[in-house]
Amino acid sequence: MAIGKKMAEKNNKISCPGFQAASVSSGLKKGGQLDLALVLSETSARVAGVFTKNTVKAAPVLLDIERLKRPTLRGIVVNSGNANACTGVEGEYCALKTATVVEKEVGLEAGEILVASTGVIGVPLPIEKVVSAAPGLVRSLSPKPGAWRDASRAMMTTDAFAKSASVSAVIGGEEVTIAAVAKGAGMIRPDMATMLAFFFTDANIGKAALKSALKESVARSFNSISVDNDMSTNDTALIFANALSSAREIKADSKDHRAFKALLTELSVDVAKMIVRDGEGAKHFIEINLKGAASEAEAKKAAWAIADSMLVKTAFAGGDPNWGRIIAAVGASGVKMKPDNFDITLNGVRVASGGIDTKKERQAARAIKTQEVILECDLKSGRSGATVWTSDLTADYVKINSEYRT
Amino acid sequence: MAIGKKMAEKNNKISCPGFQAASVSSGLKKGGQLDLALVLSETSARVAGVFTKNTVKAAPVLLDIERLKRPTLRGIVVNSGNANACTGVEGEYCALKTATVVEKEVGLEAGEILVASTGVIGVPLPIEKVVSAAPGLVRSLSPKPGAWRDASRAMMTTDAFAKSASVSAVIGGEEVTIAAVAKGAGMIRPDMATMLAFFFTDANIGKAALKSALKESVARSFNSISVDNDMSTNDTALIFANALSSAREIKADSKDHRAFKALLTELSVDVAKMIVRDGEGAKHFIEINLKGAASEAEAKKAAWAIADSMLVKTAFAGGDPNWGRIIAAVGASGVKMKPDNFDITLNGVRVASGGIDTKKERQAARAIKTQEVILECDLKSGRSGATVWTSDLTADYVKINSEYRT
Repeated sequence: MAIGKKMAEKNNKISCPGFQAASVSSGLKKGGQLDLALVLSETSARVAGVFTKNTVKAAPVLLDIERLKRPTLRGIVVNSGNANACTGVEGEYCALKTATVVEKEVGLEAGEILVASTGVIGVPLPIEKVVSAAPGLVRSLSPKPGAWRDASRAMMTTDAFAKSASVSAVIGGEEVTIAAVAKGAGMIRPDMATMLAFFFTDANIGKAALKSALKESVARSFNSISVDNDMSTNDTALIFANALSSAREIKADSKDHRAFKALLTELSVDVAKMIVRDGEGAKHFIEINLKGAASEAEAKKAAWAIADSMLVKTAFAGGDPNWGRIIAAVGASGVKMKPDNFDITLNGVRVASGGIDTKKERQAARAIKTQEVILECDLKSGRSGATVWTSDLTADYVKINSEYRT
Repeated sequence: MAIGKKMAEKNNKISCPGFQAASVSSGLKKGGQLDLALVLSETSARVAGVFTKNTVKAAPVLLDIERLKRPTLRGIVVNSGNANACTGVEGEYCALKTATVVEKEVGLEAGEILVASTGVIGVPLPIEKVVSAAPGLVRSLSPKPGAWRDASRAMMTTDAFAKSASVSAVIGGEEVTIAAVAKGAGMIRPDMATMLAFFFTDANIGKAALKSALKESVARSFNSISVDNDMSTNDTALIFANALSSAREIKADSKDHRAFKALLTELSVDVAKMIVRDGEGAKHFIEINLKGAASEAEAKKAAWAIADSMLVKTAFAGGDPNWGRIIAAVGASGVKMKPDNFDITLNGVRVASGGIDTKKERQAARAIKTQEVILECDLKSGRSGATVWTSDLTADYVKINSEYRT
């Protein structure tokens, strides 16, 4: 069982005023599993998005980037089981057709629906399955929490559990809600750390203010997690705002805007942590607190070097407090540090002090027998710090990824 | 069994005029395994070295860098079972003591012996074991191939097989020999891709010419391989030249120098490939030929992106010709490429052509059921290319590295 399942199951009461969710089994995934999801706003919504920086972008990503130029949109349709990436002109047609068939079924203008896909790269999308499933998908639209949970389930690929959550706060005198559905697991790395994360809010907020809020929250959440340091062709984060809350409009750089950004960041960090907890095969959730770096950039670089080291990740999988691998990873990153003066602490047990071993290996091995490990590394070379989250690397990761298509 | 064992066992007749090898069990490794090796030149030898770029350098690396300032040296003592890295002032003392005790036993001047260590980081070296074992080590010196093979065995940590080889060629009218002993396996990456590789030659060659030959051969061999993209604290490559061959002196930039560089590169590439074949848990040896890049730097960057992708490496472990992961890794690297026009070929089967699938998945899956896979990727964005070698990522890699200290 993935280590975050219990926590994720608490997020049961997801919903957001003016949005409805739907899902159906279209046959893209085997065995009648849910594989097609839709979230629709009852009214026009302003939308902001952040996409993969991979040069190879999937067809739905290219379609969404184009459609985000419209002032408002109405919703998003998501399929799992096929990434519709590296599929050429045919793939572009399939992405467009997916949007079109849903638009027609709902009765929308052409261009009001976004598309996202996740699954195997390079295999043509069997679009006829999507076309056949569209009427049933639209019929199943519902504002109820169960519909949201099923929608997030329909987005899963190798995910062990579905990821959805919502938060509310009083902003501008009235309650504002943000709901999220996401899928993660493999191919998670900075610069769009999640495969797919979609946010829906009833806030009344302009497009520019919405975009800056999304960017800031993504930097602090999805871009601070790593599972295997691969960057997908399909990574997409979107936020839809339908302005149905009776709260006043959130103006850019106002107190309300800061409160909205804080709420969105809180939700994003929660979802990002769910994704790490569900890292393929993960047994340990590792928070890396890097301190004493010469600059924030150096702190991030060192923290990532630790998070991405296969030797560090396998050591945690084996319950081994092997701090030598941690500092070797930092040293290899080229950041400013003192090779003979650093501290490393694992779940409160100082394993290296002043650059040398403290002979607390057994104590540390006991301390990291938890699902959650807090790794603190002080480089003593400055005052900057950074926090990133990652998971360990287990034999199950290899099993999942070597058998993914077989 | 590691995939290169058969090939490595062919290299049976290793020797080099004027050099002797020795090994002994000192108790650093359990069960009476060989763990201390010595290679000694009968006369003074010129020496060149290349070391890890990790900021955290093990004590023996720091000692060797200092000692390479001498015009000549006599040999190197190597221990496995302990890296003597992150061991503070005590570690510096242990590295010095290791050299001193061997120097005294042989009857050399202080400063004539280099030291290398490999094993766990951060654990103090039990120097008394090395001191007690030194007399037996020196007594076992022999020019015979068996002594060289045992010396390379004494350097092993997680290596599945010992790595040694020698080559000879007529350079400057007479035969010149180069012998090599090496250890590899985990923590292999560019910028000192091997943990330890030591070369010994009877060539008469100046220090500057020797150094340029070593640098060039390392760039084309050890710096073109990757197992897990971690860079060790102890990586060291050294070449000793004792001038005992009757061939004329090899002058820098001469025809003889080019011939010597070619011979050293041939041997280095052989040894580097042995290291990849012995990548921890490796089942596939993968040669990546990257073509059509805008520059040599871009070609290398793209080739490394493929070689270092955990998703690519796990796909090969599973025998899955998943070219989508290959091109996603290239796209994530940021090199210039056309997302809709590239070719990918696996062991001669074109799996992607013009950026889309060729529907030859089954044929490709059969073609990569070999231990050796040649992956060709043409970016069609220029005329530059690069070749790197890597291994796949198996559940055994994780098992080996998570249980290394247990």
